[in-house]
Amino acid sequence: MSAEKVEIFDTTLRDGEQVPGCKLNTAQKLKIAARLDELGVDVIEAGFPVSSPGDFQSVTEISKIVKNAAVCGLTRAVKQDIEVAAEALKYAKKPRIHTGIGTSESHIKYKFNATPEQIIERAVEAVAYAKNFADDVEFYAEDAGRTDNAFLAQVCQEVVNAGATVLNIPDTTGYCLPEEYGKKIKYLKDHVVGIDNVTISCHCHNDLGLATANAIAGVANGARQIECTINGIGERAGNTALEEVVMILRQHPTLNLNTDINPKLLFEVSKMVAREMGMFVQPNKAIVGANAFAHSSGIHQDGVIKNRETYEIIDPADVGVTESAIVLTARSGRAALAYKAKKVGYNLTKLELDAVYAEFLNYADMKKEVLDEDIHEIMAISKDKIKATA
Amino acid sequence: MSAEKVEIFDTTLRDGEQVPGCKLNTAQKLKIAARLDELGVDVIEAGFPVSSPGDFQSVTEISKIVKNAAVCGLTRAVKQDIEVAAEALKYAKKPRIHTGIGTSESHIKYKFNATPEQIIERAVEAVAYAKNFADDVEFYAEDAGRTDNAFLAQVCQEVVNAGATVLNIPDTTGYCLPEEYGKKIKYLKDHVVGIDNVTISCHCHNDLGLATANAIAGVANGARQIECTINGIGERAGNTALEEVVMILRQHPTLNLNTDINPKLLFEVSKMVAREMGMFVQPNKAIVGANAFAHSSGIHQDGVIKNRETYEIIDPADVGVTESAIVLTARSGRAALAYKAKKVGYNLTKLELDAVYAEFLNYADMKKEVLDEDIHEIMAISKDKIKATA
Repeated sequence: MSAEKVEIFDTTLRDGEQVPGCKLNTAQKLKIAARLDELGVDVIEAGFPVSSPGDFQSVTEISKIVKNAAVCGLTRAVKQDIEVAAEALKYAKKPRIHTGIGTSESHIKYKFNATPEQIIERAVEAVAYAKNFADDVEFYAEDAGRTDNAFLAQVCQEVVNAGATVLNIPDTTGYCLPEEYGKKIKYLKDHVVGIDNVTISCHCHNDLGLATANAIAGVANGARQIECTINGIGERAGNTALEEVVMILRQHPTLNLNTDINPKLLFEVSKMVAREMGMFVQPNKAIVGANAFAHSSGIHQDGVIKNRETYEIIDPADVGVTESAIVLTARSGRAALAYKAKKVGYNLTKLELDAVYAEFLNYADMKKEVLDEDIHEIMAISKDKIKATA
Repeated sequence: MSAEKVEIFDTTLRDGEQVPGCKLNTAQKLKIAARLDELGVDVIEAGFPVSSPGDFQSVTEISKIVKNAAVCGLTRAVKQDIEVAAEALKYAKKPRIHTGIGTSESHIKYKFNATPEQIIERAVEAVAYAKNFADDVEFYAEDAGRTDNAFLAQVCQEVVNAGATVLNIPDTTGYCLPEEYGKKIKYLKDHVVGIDNVTISCHCHNDLGLATANAIAGVANGARQIECTINGIGERAGNTALEEVVMILRQHPTLNLNTDINPKLLFEVSKMVAREMGMFVQPNKAIVGANAFAHSSGIHQDGVIKNRETYEIIDPADVGVTESAIVLTARSGRAALAYKAKKVGYNLTKLELDAVYAEFLNYADMKKEVLDEDIHEIMAISKDKIKATA
């Protein structure tokens, strides 16, 4: 059975940009949008056009240059928002309007001061109105993660009937556990008539560190779109990281799902987005962190030198990283020292290695990292001991 | 039913320190160990004593100062390692020796060039030998994540029989999906005689971004210890983040599990570890990132100003953050502008706010973030428009 496709909806330029300090100008957004298109994302959420003149302009310009992906604009369930988004998307080859409203008790009561019936009415009106401007209308049930499943199914049923093509089920506050989020998607699959004709989308936030796991639980239960950002950036603790879900689906063939992303571009696109947004990626970030393929402990280095797969499930080259780094520290063993020493020109016998290793440890205890030039110094310090082994 | 306790095994000073650039000196390690003890962790893995003289010294000194937590030292399944660890732990109030060996096909074949029978023999010998030095002996089945469950159960059975008190089931390469890891723990619960008398421990790596979700799946299926690090640091993409699992268990009472961690210290301890190790935390890191409680989009800010719980599942004060940040950007709405303007001394009427908001958007489109001093400038720019509303 060939793998089913999961669409990648990139919201780096909308939810990702919605971050203190991240704001991009139009030129930067165009540069990123062009790279996302090359990366192979299915949808680029380009912005929230009604929010500011600058954002309107960005969505307009992105719509003009994107070649393959659908271009999407966010709106509230407000007529003017929808009109402005439609205007901004008018040059897009595949325009999508993304509209919606909060459906959780907390959102209905405190944010909208409304009744559940009024929320459904506004949702249906928004979708129906958006259909006047675009065939492809995605509906978001904001805070779906904390929305009662029966009410959520009712809202979804009404907006599917009104013509929504994609149902976005956001865990807006990042609250759900993976099992719970997966069950929510399955509940909708089982209770909304005609849902098999629309695409269910996962939009997960990372407040508890579960955004990636939740999105995977979603697609394992029938969703076929993941909303995500490069480096997992986004409001608060961010969104599902694009690079993580793409590599999980590749590394787990039993899920029988794949994407059209070209993984070899992941590392480079990650670096570009970090640079343009000034949002650095921590060294221990999965897939794209500086240390993601670095081995510093002796046990691990020894294993990787013998056989890469002992400690690496992904070949770094597959995501565009040129090689796994063997970094020498006081936790490194003889195998790593011999490996690095050989690289800088010293072929050590076993006895010589024993002699040098003791000096190496003393040296390394005083330094965070032993560099190639340090190896020459360690060899110099050890020269009497090496002679003694001869 | 009162919640069952999950023990927190902190390995910031061992797996966390096993990171290029992270190396700490003994004074720094003592400072961190003391704070971890105050934070309420149950076990502090202080180092890998045989690896270097510096690490031996650190484990020795940490053993002397820790008041409440058990202090643990890592070893391979090698007699000398165990003897050295026991020596380093001799001052600990509650010493624990952590020994083990690789059990996956890849580790057995490429790393040890051994047979499964030889691996079991070495595992049992190591546990039995360690029991001569400590009552509390934890066994790790390295690469358990990729180890066949039937063989893993066989290894666990033998080491439990040999006296292991804790069984560590590491997903060493960060490969497992949460459902798969959870099932592995359940399989062991169902197939190892006497396993209810020992503690099953989750040690998960973050190569695919799933370390936190996997640890939670583990405890949901019967594990009662989580191995984790502050800020999720560790080899490659790091380990399960302590702050994430602690807050997940607190925020999800239906799991019926808790820890003894004092969450109010989380933010401060995170900052201290980042500073001492020189390992920065990305702004969008869950719980402890600089933006974890920052709201910049208009929709979110409006919601949070009306009622914090609309977009926040954790009260920032609960983890030691003084307040959620409302950050003004071009994505901010009128509510946030009014809120911040009021804070710096301007009480705007609705009409005045409309007038200022248009100027604010033009201004904000040119800047990443609008600071308090910028508000004064925007007010000055808008003064004619404000007058016109009077």
